Amino acid sequence: MSHNSFGHLFRVTTFGESHGPAIGCVVDGCPPGIALTEADIQHDLDRRKPGQSRFTTQRREADEVKILSGVFPHPESGEQVTTGTSIGLLIENTDQRSKDYGDIKDKYRPGHADFAYDVKYGLRDYRGGGRSSARETAMRVAAGAIARKVVPGLVVRGAVVQIGPHRINRANWDWSIINDNPFFCPDAAMVDVFAAYLDGVRKSGSSIGAVIEVVAEGVPAGLGAPIYGKLDTDIAANLMSINAVKGVEIGDGFAAAELTGEQNADELRMGNDGRPLFLSNHAGGVVGGISTGQAVIARFAVKPTSSILTPRQTIDRAGHEADILTKGRHDPCVGLRAVPVGEAMVACAIADHYLRDRAQTGGVRHWPGA
Amino acid sequence: MSHNSFGHLFRVTTFGESHGPAIGCVVDGCPPGIALTEADIQHDLDRRKPGQSRFTTQRREADEVKILSGVFPHPESGEQVTTGTSIGLLIENTDQRSKDYGDIKDKYRPGHADFAYDVKYGLRDYRGGGRSSARETAMRVAAGAIARKVVPGLVVRGAVVQIGPHRINRANWDWSIINDNPFFCPDAAMVDVFAAYLDGVRKSGSSIGAVIEVVAEGVPAGLGAPIYGKLDTDIAANLMSINAVKGVEIGDGFAAAELTGEQNADELRMGNDGRPLFLSNHAGGVVGGISTGQAVIARFAVKPTSSILTPRQTIDRAGHEADILTKGRHDPCVGLRAVPVGEAMVACAIADHYLRDRAQTGGVRHWPGA
Amino acid sequence: MSHNSFGHLFRVTTFGESHGPAIGCVVDGCPPGIALTEADIQHDLDRRKPGQSRFTTQRREADEVKILSGVFPHPESGEQVTTGTSIGLLIENTDQRSKDYGDIKDKYRPGHADFAYDVKYGLRDYRGGGRSSARETAMRVAAGAIARKVVPGLVVRGAVVQIGPHRINRANWDWSIINDNPFFCPDAAMVDVFAAYLDGVRKSGSSIGAVIEVVAEGVPAGLGAPIYGKLDTDIAANLMSINAVKGVEIGDGFAAAELTGEQNADELRMGNDGRPLFLSNHAGGVVGGISTGQAVIARFAVKPTSSILTPRQTIDRAGHEADILTKGRHDPCVGLRAVPVGEAMVACAIADHYLRDRAQTGGVRHWPGA
Amino acid sequence: MSHNSFGHLFRVTTFGESHGPAIGCVVDGCPPGIALTEADIQHDLDRRKPGQSRFTTQRREADEVKILSGVFPHPESGEQVTTGTSIGLLIENTDQRSKDYGDIKDKYRPGHADFAYDVKYGLRDYRGGGRSSARETAMRVAAGAIARKVVPGLVVRGAVVQIGPHRINRANWDWSIINDNPFFCPDAAMVDVFAAYLDGVRKSGSSIGAVIEVVAEGVPAGLGAPIYGKLDTDIAANLMSINAVKGVEIGDGFAAAELTGEQNADELRMGNDGRPLFLSNHAGGVVGGISTGQAVIARFAVKPTSSILTPRQTIDRAGHEADILTKGRHDPCVGLRAVPVGEAMVACAIADHYLRDRAQTGGVRHWPGA
Repeated sequence: MSHNSFGHLFRVTTFGESHGPAIGCVVDGCPPGIALTEADIQHDLDRRKPGQSRFTTQRREADEVKILSGVFPHPESGEQVTTGTSIGLLIENTDQRSKDYGDIKDKYRPGHADFAYDVKYGLRDYRGGGRSSARETAMRVAAGAIARKVVPGLVVRGAVVQIGPHRINRANWDWSIINDNPFFCPDAAMVDVFAAYLDGVRKSGSSIGAVIEVVAEGVPAGLGAPIYGKLDTDIAANLMSINAVKGVEIGDGFAAAELTGEQNADELRMGNDGRPLFLSNHAGGVVGGISTGQAVIARFAVKPTSSILTPRQTIDRAGHEADILTKGRHDPCVGLRAVPVGEAMVACAIADHYLRDRAQTGGVRHWPGA
Repeated sequence: MSHNSFGHLFRVTTFGESHGPAIGCVVDGCPPGIALTEADIQHDLDRRKPGQSRFTTQRREADEVKILSGVFPHPESGEQVTTGTSIGLLIENTDQRSKDYGDIKDKYRPGHADFAYDVKYGLRDYRGGGRSSARETAMRVAAGAIARKVVPGLVVRGAVVQIGPHRINRANWDWSIINDNPFFCPDAAMVDVFAAYLDGVRKSGSSIGAVIEVVAEGVPAGLGAPIYGKLDTDIAANLMSINAVKGVEIGDGFAAAELTGEQNADELRMGNDGRPLFLSNHAGGVVGGISTGQAVIARFAVKPTSSILTPRQTIDRAGHEADILTKGRHDPCVGLRAVPVGEAMVACAIADHYLRDRAQTGGVRHWPGA
Repeated sequence: MSHNSFGHLFRVTTFGESHGPAIGCVVDGCPPGIALTEADIQHDLDRRKPGQSRFTTQRREADEVKILSGVFPHPESGEQVTTGTSIGLLIENTDQRSKDYGDIKDKYRPGHADFAYDVKYGLRDYRGGGRSSARETAMRVAAGAIARKVVPGLVVRGAVVQIGPHRINRANWDWSIINDNPFFCPDAAMVDVFAAYLDGVRKSGSSIGAVIEVVAEGVPAGLGAPIYGKLDTDIAANLMSINAVKGVEIGDGFAAAELTGEQNADELRMGNDGRPLFLSNHAGGVVGGISTGQAVIARFAVKPTSSILTPRQTIDRAGHEADILTKGRHDPCVGLRAVPVGEAMVACAIADHYLRDRAQTGGVRHWPGA
Repeated sequence: MSHNSFGHLFRVTTFGESHGPAIGCVVDGCPPGIALTEADIQHDLDRRKPGQSRFTTQRREADEVKILSGVFPHPESGEQVTTGTSIGLLIENTDQRSKDYGDIKDKYRPGHADFAYDVKYGLRDYRGGGRSSARETAMRVAAGAIARKVVPGLVVRGAVVQIGPHRINRANWDWSIINDNPFFCPDAAMVDVFAAYLDGVRKSGSSIGAVIEVVAEGVPAGLGAPIYGKLDTDIAANLMSINAVKGVEIGDGFAAAELTGEQNADELRMGNDGRPLFLSNHAGGVVGGISTGQAVIARFAVKPTSSILTPRQTIDRAGHEADILTKGRHDPCVGLRAVPVGEAMVACAIADHYLRDRAQTGGVRHWPGA
């Protein structure tokens, strides 16, 4: 059991506060012989990095990751590969702007973890959110970059599908534009709508929620295990553990409540390649907790950040009533930067179950031809 | 790590197939000295038991639980209490109707775990769903009955808030009628609507999804831990692990995506009792993964059961295309019986975190007056 | 985390008290497709069963194991095999002799768990030792019978190498006589010595300690993982968890303290089969926590049972000083019946690491020819 | 499950190789509010540090530990205390002497982990032992320094009781001299004997084994849990996980095999303070896996290091036979520096069970007056 770890066989343990000297993580259980350099990880980190558009916090962190252990040149190829020992990763904090935290030091931002931490622990590192800062998610992205390499052929991509009242049109879905707009938006027609809407939110010092969808392709059939070792259980847990997430769906999610059994049935035919072919994917790639070989589809809802410029009623540490507003650098829509984080958490769950399945079944598929 | 366990300090491990000799579980970590009899557990089991109305499967199981270990008369009071050792529970299967399973033995019901089990394991106990049967949830309810006793003052209640297209009116919410109608419906005006609708579903041999809401009151502030030991993460995982669940929400859930920071803020005042008073509960009782002392609110969506009378296209074990329809006794809305299961899973998560919090902090609350 | 489980990927959870209705366990993580019947398990249980000679307790338990779940006829062969779901095992208690436990109910046997249980939990099931009874070890043996089948080619055997002051002569070691004498003694010349010595112990109402050696052959190289996932760490833990065990050794054990580096080196040559050949086995088959392919050798010391007929000074629950002696049916040398238990615990550790290794490395060995 | 973690509620995860940029660990689950500075940890690290006498390796590492997270000034006292979040610790490697590792790069030192790592993983960081280097134990000592602070009143001390054939005289035991000689030797009369003997070992380029005893005082009664959560099980596992350890004993250990039940009984009287008083401590402070309140006593045997100057027969990576000898800086008796490591591992086990006990029982003791 651990408060700061997730996964079982692909296991990630993180540490670090927003304004401490560094954040880091340990990735344990990674198979040996996988090519891994800092550049591999940095690529994903850069997608999460703040300060890349006017729609994210202006904090500027280099977010340069260092691999401290667990890699070595392969004896034959000379390529740097994982050794099978624990991989230590470190990112030094560089832009901890010296400021007066007097306002949030003793007062609790409504909707923020401030209150709960103080009640539980009796104290907290209040600088920049401390341990509850979204900064911690950098290590998830770093771990996810490794997870992606564990499962051969795995591709995990995410997109923002809703910001506030604005939903994308799924008919327009185009993965190729995802990284070309500041919203990870797959619908070209929505980019300007999101931009205009978020400009308004930002200028008013407010914030807004969002919904992100993550799609994993290349997931082998047979990952996950019945009852409490379900793949979708772990995806749900991993996504719900991201800061500010309040809802998670697999496949049709809440819409499944309105479906009949006939509508929900993902019918099966034999494909031309002699393998099973599903005619739909209401299940989101998981039935009975086990992957079917279809794309695994998950969505999660992110609430608006609680750091806003409009004063709200609150209390302080001493039990006095007060008002609070949060100055400083904040994300008007923290959901945007949650896209690479969501991808990473799904990738980690899949990598974990890939190893778990290999343990129990040897990874051998029994389906003829598979 | 375990495929058939959940929880850490209040840990539940289950076994058993639908048509095997028995199902059972082991509850580990329960504190000593808690009064516990079979009747305490039976009470909850009877709420989940099938065959109690025309809206659930007509399978008739006595579902009589036996406590095999972990209890003993208290040396002073003579009352039967937990001893702190592992509690073994057993329910013998009695109504395993002898029937021809030829149809589902080799064919895969679309939407069902049949296919995934065969792909992963190479075989499965197909009788009545085997391990993937909803029958397994009886042990969750049994464990939940114990969990409720672990946390002093805890009250966990659930209700069906949606069946197919029909949603309750929250303004009519009345807990007192929950157990007086076959739908665990809290809105008196909806009972007849649900009945008429489900009669139609049942008669057509179809099935339909549902949404259940679980509310936990009396949850102490301070349960849960940052990052990967969050209370809401574990509630989400526990609920997603229930058969047929496809979505989970905490507090406002997906609706939070449409809220601004101002709207989402649960403002704080000091109550007349000298304790913090929240003016709203968008968070569903959890911020930063830690309980605030407000009611913990979770919802989950249950898809329609895949056992229906209308033929669907599928394939068989040998890779031949075929049609399938499922005769036999089934739930037209498996979501109904998921209510006590959902309650149990939330109770287990809270009990687990109650013990986890006590380990790390001694259970001492630092807030003045708490 | 669990108080009543061991193993990670081959995970065993037990429950039950000596005089409750039954004892049982759940084996989780067993690969699918392994032939398994009750007879397979019963064979090992019968070796541990009490009442088979005058040198063990005269309690007579049938110890008939029932498999409650996790097996099913193979779809092609019809043979009963594991399905990959959790395996529930149950043994009903049948010879719970009704007796007056007045003497140990309130008084603490020196050297027994009585005192510690009462201090920790405030109560205990004192009948026959309750949860701390050696009866629980039956479930270890049952789980071990399954573990042996998980690793192809694994053979795990144990022997008593010392009873009180009497040590066997290792030059006489003969596995073939192990099951033909009541002491699991591999030295024919010692059988009569052990018999005469233990007759004396038994007649005087006393008890004596013993040392058991377990040898596992057919252990693949590469099982275990560095630092905290070492194979020998888990063997040590598994053996130390057996009732009354006070010491554990791997390979040369404590004798290694007297060796020089030269003496301790297990030199390597290439065998005629083109594989590495060790010239000695001081390491007991494990270096750096990882198996080498040599036989894994472990030893453990069992203290004398604390139930003896000579009165000892003690205190009672109320804090009064008293004398105590324990009548009833007891083992003069509980170490004898620990042999199959020790074998089972070593087998379980090896099965667990076999699955763990397969998860991380795919079970692929990199050594040429291996 | 983790290959590089130990403990459950006081959980330690380490990373790092001997010649990588740094070694580090994450300590998770530490209660909040405990005063902790780098100096607290450094004190223990300095006792383990190499190069302090001619009897340990001449590698000179500053071993300066940095706390990267999990501490913050207390809001009232201003003292730096733990916050309850994960504590990241880092030690940079500074004396990685550039050298030719050609000899051990491809050849396997008999008795060393070289062979097993290569077989399992297909490659290894061979520089200075890589992950299997004793350097990793620095992080255990660091974690142990925190563990000691978790349990109020806990004092854990260790001593070398045997080097090669030389055993101390227990009658001379004097804790006060432990840190005043380079052998952590408690017997003043043995210091010169050890020195002369080890000088001989060192000059001949050989190495020798040792036995270390660890005594923990101030351990509350009631720590540990029956069957698989035993305190002594975890102490045994923690000690066996230390590099080069081949045997572990609790209390009388292997000597208990020669005791009768009468001799082994730790009789009980009532002390003048109204609390239970044991008349002996054969059990080493643990019965039934639960602490009794007496001193917890453990011993472990350390084999000689496999890096010696006398050539031994071995094979290389390509399967050719060869001779090997290990030049460089090595410990003639690695057991010496294992003393603070053993203390740390025992302290960590006790801290873990202190938190586990608090979870299940609230830490409340039921014995009158306790």
